Order: sequence, then C-alpha cells, then structure tokens
Amino acid sequence: MADIKKLAIIASKGTLDWAYPPFILASAAAAMDMEAVLFFTFYGLPLLKKEIDLKVTPVGNPAMPMKMPFGSKEFQGFNWPIPNIISGNVPGFDTMATMLMKETFKKKGVATIEQLREMCQESGVRFIACQMTMDVFGFERKDFIDGVEYGGAAMFLEYAADANMSLFI
Amino acid sequence: MADIKKLAIIASKGTLDWAYPPFILASAAAAMDMEAVLFFTFYGLPLLKKEIDLKVTPVGNPAMPMKMPFGSKEFQGFNWPIPNIISGNVPGFDTMATMLMKETFKKKGVATIEQLREMCQESGVRFIACQMTMDVFGFERKDFIDGVEYGGAAMFLEYAADANMSLFI
Amino acid sequence: MADIKKLAIIASKGTLDWAYPPFILASAAAAMDMEAVLFFTFYGLPLLKKEIDLKVTPVGNPAMPMKMPFGSKEFQGFNWPIPNIISGNVPGFDTMATMLMKETFKKKGVATIEQLREMCQESGVRFIACQMTMDVFGFERKDFIDGVEYGGAAMFLEYAADANMSLFI
Repeated sequence: MADIKKLAIIASKGTLDWAYPPFILASAAAAMDMEAVLFFTFYGLPLLKKEIDLKVTPVGNPAMPMKMPFGSKEFQGFNWPIPNIISGNVPGFDTMATMLMKETFKKKGVATIEQLREMCQESGVRFIACQMTMDVFGFERKDFIDGVEYGGAAMFLEYAADANMSLFI
Repeated sequence: MADIKKLAIIASKGTLDWAYPPFILASAAAAMDMEAVLFFTFYGLPLLKKEIDLKVTPVGNPAMPMKMPFGSKEFQGFNWPIPNIISGNVPGFDTMATMLMKETFKKKGVATIEQLREMCQESGVRFIACQMTMDVFGFERKDFIDGVEYGGAAMFLEYAADANMSLFI
Repeated sequence: MADIKKLAIIASKGTLDWAYPPFILASAAAAMDMEAVLFFTFYGLPLLKKEIDLKVTPVGNPAMPMKMPFGSKEFQGFNWPIPNIISGNVPGFDTMATMLMKETFKKKGVATIEQLREMCQESGVRFIACQMTMDVFGFERKDFIDGVEYGGAAMFLEYAADANMSLFI
C-alpha cells in the first residue's frame, strides 16, 4: 500500500501512431496496479476529443513501414518503400496511409485509440488537459470527453516529482 | 531544504513548436522552487543561439492545427486542413506557417522563446550544451548566449540519475 | 554496490538521426557503471535488425542542418537551407541526405549505429524487443541480432518503476 508505483506521462503528439504509446503504457501500468497520470498538451490535446479523428503520414518519417492489410502473408509482409515524392504529392495519400494503418492494427487485434482510452479511464488513469495550450490551440472543455481534469505545467510537475517514472511522448 | 525536487530535460528538437516544452517546463519548475537542468543536443542546439530563428512546418505532422490569428472569433477558431501536397509544394509555406504560429502565440499572450529562455536563466535553470554534437552539427561557443555550460552525455546522466524527473523532448 | 544507478529507455524511432540518442545514452551510462535497458518498440524495432538500413530526411524537420562533408572548412560549415518543396520533390533526395549525414558523422569521428549497438551489448546493456509491435509491424525474431530479450510494455514498466531515469525517445 505504501509503495504504489506512479507513472507520469506527457502526451504531446496527436497523430494516429503516436497516440498509442501514452494509452498503451498507462493502461498497462494500471493493469499492474500502478497509478498513472496522462497530461495532454500541444498536439496531444485532440486525443481528448469526443470524436477522435487522427491521421498519420509517412511524410518525413522514412522509418514508417507501409504494409498492405490484405492479400497473402508474403504480400502483407512486404514493406512498401514510399519516397516523400510520392507520399507528399499524391492527393489523398495520407488518408490512404491512415486507413491502412487502422486496418493493419485491427487485423492484428490491437485495440483502437477510443477503446484504449476508455480502458484507461475505467482503470483509474487520470487525464489532465493543459489549460494554457487549450486556449492557444483553440480547444474548449465542451470538445472533450467527461472525466478530464484541467491544469497547467505546475500540476504535472507536482505529480511527476513524486512519481517513479516520467515520460515525454 | 533537504528535499529540493530536481528536473532533468534533454532538449533535442529545434523547431518553433518543440522549442516551447523544455523552456515552459523548466521555468515552471523553477517557479515551484525546483532545480532544473536543460541539456541541449542534436537539433536542440540552435535554441542556445544568440539570434534565434526557429521555423515550424505542418509537413509530416497532420496533427498540427493551422489557425488564422486574425478575423472573427469563428474564423480564428477554424482549423485549416492543409494536406502535405500543399504545405510541401507551395513556395514559402513554412515561412507563412511560422509567422502564423508566432502571431497566434503572441495574441494568446504566450511568451516568446527568447523571453522564456531569459526567464529560465534568471531563475537559475542550468543550460548545458552537448559538446560532441556541437562539433558534429557545426556550432561554436561564440554562437551561443552567455551562461551556458559545456559537457557530454555523462554530465547529463550524472545529474539525471539523482533527479526526480527526467524527460527526453 | 547497493546503489547502482539504472537507466530505462524506450527507443521508438527508426530514422538515422533518432537512432543515435538511445545507443549513445545507454553506452555512456554503461561506461559510468550504470545499468541500462533499451526497450525497442514501434519504429524503433528496425534498430535491432541484423542488417541496419536507416534513412533520414529533412522533410518536416526545418531544424535539420544540411552540411556538406567535403570542401573547405567554410563550405563544410555552411548550413544549406532546403525547403520542403525541394527535399520532398527531388527524386533521391533522402538517399542523398542520408549519405551526407553518414559521411559527416564519419568525418567527425562519431561511431556508426552498428558500432554503438555492439558497444552497448558488450558492456551489458539489455535490449528488449516489444513483442506486440513486432507482430503489428511485421518483424520476426530471425530478423534481429542475438542477445535480444522479448517482452511487452509490462516488462519495461516493471524495470522502469525501479530505475533512476526513464526516457521516451
């Protein structure tokens, strides 16, 4: 009881891929009876929206594998090399990349961001939205799901200073 | 007195947007009577330059909201969807995106990077420049502001090992 | 003996530039008689491949300096401003950028990723591959070097909860 481990995470990114790590780590921590706080700021704020509509792009990330979620095992295993010249210029490419990633995750049995987020809330993970960046980036409390706390960097630091792990994602 | 909390941050990114978190967190920590060290390495080194000239681009970051810092409240609240095909191809787009972000921050009363940096130094936040990457990326001590310490990964690790929070930004 | 410092790192990125920080920090920690664990997940998994083939692109990162690794000192010191319109559209630009970065690092005496990785393993740094994302991103154990452990987020959190530093890179 005296030694409950604590995890403090700053979720600062809002693309489909980088939305996963905060929710995966926090829900895993909760499943291990740890305490977890997610502080959403900057591009991470959209992760709190009622209707999540995240995108992903391989542009600028040559490490992103492009997989096809259908066809034979070999075809699915192939890693399509998409240079920026294609991904940055073909209209609708990001929409396709987003669709393909969602489909791949679904086929592999990975939960959606919405499901992971719900899992977090049900297991007691605290969500804090950064009040200052909400105003800068144009978000309002009514845009967000219920059960969110509001605060600033100080609120995060106060928690993190006594946590066992702090991560900036 | 015996329990001053310590924050150790690696600032590795040098775009206008990612320049904010290290300075915001460090100055907030200092305001809470915590100790803070910022270790600048890789793309984060330009944050120490006398003349800061940071840019930002929505290319490769579909989560970046594009806002107009003028016009009616509704117009300002609108989030312009800019696909890579536009942002990556219209000449001067990044310059415009940078100008728009600076203007939005200013209108919202957010301090500039220069102001936040000064605030950090005045409140005792330590700045360490990574000697090894300075050489690799072509920076010299004379490019940087006064009051910077110079060291390597070992210097950061020694501090961070006894800190309460460590963040890689 | 009772107070060996511990470093826990999540390596989530797989481009040539972001491959450096995890290996540099872990090898530096090991050289300081600290314990270090690298947990590879998401785009960081390719860093464990037998044959490493990492790329880098300035697209989407206006903070990346483009240097020429040849010619006079002044010529080498010049920072080429490459807008996305060029870097995203000239065929083979990323291949060139990758070649230039590798050459610059080599000239400056920086070890290659392969060398740093070997140094880590020789000095006892533990490598853990994220089993869940391996499956999602299509990696198999036979693709990876020897000496890798396999586990999930829980395995990382268990270690990190008792570590002195945890970093998400």
